[in-house]
Amino acid sequence: MFIPVILGTAREGRRSENPAKYMVEEVKSFGAESELVDVRDYLIGRTDASGETPQAKKFIEILKRSDALIIVVPEYNHGYPGELKIMLDMAYNEYAGKPIGICGVSVGPFGGMRVVEQLRQVVIEYSMIPIREAVYFGNVGKLFDDSGTITDASYHERAQKFIANLKSSLK
Amino acid sequence: MFIPVILGTAREGRRSENPAKYMVEEVKSFGAESELVDVRDYLIGRTDASGETPQAKKFIEILKRSDALIIVVPEYNHGYPGELKIMLDMAYNEYAGKPIGICGVSVGPFGGMRVVEQLRQVVIEYSMIPIREAVYFGNVGKLFDDSGTITDASYHERAQKFIANLKSSLK
Amino acid sequence: MFIPVILGTAREGRRSENPAKYMVEEVKSFGAESELVDVRDYLIGRTDASGETPQAKKFIEILKRSDALIIVVPEYNHGYPGELKIMLDMAYNEYAGKPIGICGVSVGPFGGMRVVEQLRQVVIEYSMIPIREAVYFGNVGKLFDDSGTITDASYHERAQKFIANLKSSLK
Amino acid sequence: MFIPVILGTAREGRRSENPAKYMVEEVKSFGAESELVDVRDYLIGRTDASGETPQAKKFIEILKRSDALIIVVPEYNHGYPGELKIMLDMAYNEYAGKPIGICGVSVGPFGGMRVVEQLRQVVIEYSMIPIREAVYFGNVGKLFDDSGTITDASYHERAQKFIANLKSSLK
Repeated sequence: MFIPVILGTAREGRRSENPAKYMVEEVKSFGAESELVDVRDYLIGRTDASGETPQAKKFIEILKRSDALIIVVPEYNHGYPGELKIMLDMAYNEYAGKPIGICGVSVGPFGGMRVVEQLRQVVIEYSMIPIREAVYFGNVGKLFDDSGTITDASYHERAQKFIANLKSSLK
Repeated sequence: MFIPVILGTAREGRRSENPAKYMVEEVKSFGAESELVDVRDYLIGRTDASGETPQAKKFIEILKRSDALIIVVPEYNHGYPGELKIMLDMAYNEYAGKPIGICGVSVGPFGGMRVVEQLRQVVIEYSMIPIREAVYFGNVGKLFDDSGTITDASYHERAQKFIANLKSSLK
Repeated sequence: MFIPVILGTAREGRRSENPAKYMVEEVKSFGAESELVDVRDYLIGRTDASGETPQAKKFIEILKRSDALIIVVPEYNHGYPGELKIMLDMAYNEYAGKPIGICGVSVGPFGGMRVVEQLRQVVIEYSMIPIREAVYFGNVGKLFDDSGTITDASYHERAQKFIANLKSSLK
Repeated sequence: MFIPVILGTAREGRRSENPAKYMVEEVKSFGAESELVDVRDYLIGRTDASGETPQAKKFIEILKRSDALIIVVPEYNHGYPGELKIMLDMAYNEYAGKPIGICGVSVGPFGGMRVVEQLRQVVIEYSMIPIREAVYFGNVGKLFDDSGTITDASYHERAQKFIANLKSSLK
């Protein structure tokens, strides 16, 4: 079972890198394969759904190998980062039927709940299966220490429950 | 009264250019000033809310001169084009208190209703005033002829009602 | 395979009855069992998630027998009818893992797209699987004749595709 | 300035009563008039937009006297309580042009953010002005003591900022 983790912001100074790397480790701890898919490696500047750019080809290859997806995404003004949407819109058919779990990130306490809701509407259009569980990384500045280690051990249980929900949603 | 029209996609082969130019003319016909603000002139590739890029500075200057805003935006997989979100997230304080009207565009019959709903949630966070009226350009491929002229005269009344709603929402 | 169709408004003069009955027949035509579940038979006036009312018990029995669900729902001010939400909130555990398809209804041309989007966010919380396909019954006043027969034959293909999407989403 | 506070759930055992009463007092503390409008006094069981029921007439009278509105609403399965939607849909024209602020309530930590987002889409259709600010009453069971007094003093500043946002949105 291969579940890549998409890091959904390329902003300089982004705070979602720690949560995304954390989720990669949690997937491995669950007993599945994972890798970080950093939107910084897929920047094409504007929407292009042709699937013909090198970035799209690389992304589509990863999707084809995937059994399910995780997105870790900060909330920017109640919505998603534009660069993530450009990346997601590179593909279409390759998403169909795969479970997807979305993790929100915020500097404030709420963990990006609203971006999770907006993205769920998008991924249904890709024919994906959005799962009920989500992991919300609120107060992200304090949630990870300087070495990038999570400081709240309860996240392990949440993350495992989230990944179990992904697995149980496989067809 | 200055009401610029943001053309919210930079995709090659985009179909929203005709509707956006049409709305510029409708604003002028209403008796206000307008100009096209093409997201293609503001591409920075990824989120940057510093306001320090040349593109941000130029966009912010336009916002400062604006009394209200119109966005013309296609619906991509039930959401907004990433490049539009990157552009909008360049600014923040300059939006406050200004009315905003959103026009959806789609190749199919529904005119982008869902992207209008998602963007309304975003612009409230900018402290803008989202108006009730919207103009939906469905079946856009047939709605404009080869010269870019609209083929359905009823849009004039809709557009004027929409702009009147913007004007009546000015504080 | 049993796929009941929930008629999601109890308003006097409601226009969604014809589309709901139509979908029941389409499910049967697909080769599955169906029946109409009319929210008028489940009115309890206000939210009660105890599952202890006679209406809740009856609804829960239907859910237990169901393999998937269809909701036919009009859009009231961009949202769902309150009586439908009260009914849906009567149950919880019985929804888990079942595919759900939502059909929108509107007097105007757009077929209730926005209520479909809002309900999708709700049903994910019930751990249901919202499918990509939807059927939009726009201009509903003209779409059915006085005898309740649909006047646009193309809906048959749409409905069958929609039901096929439900079936393919069964685990 | 008259700003009534709608208590948006009639559920037995509801937890939103304390937050709603708190907001009434905060409006008065701000220097405006207020009163509690309890959805329990407006239950009609199903959607009726005729405006002809006694409940609708009473609600419409309150709306006519109002300069702005506050809704205090719990989140039920990521959406709004059905009885609130039935009540809101009783009126239409009386909402136009008035600012509205929405406060979310939840037993869990997130304070009902998602119901706030869904209701914003609804109130735009009523031609209301949804304000940016919101007050989120998370962990509501602990947030008020047995006498109904709020235990976190920081809410006073949030509430006053919220009401100031309403006032500044008056036309």
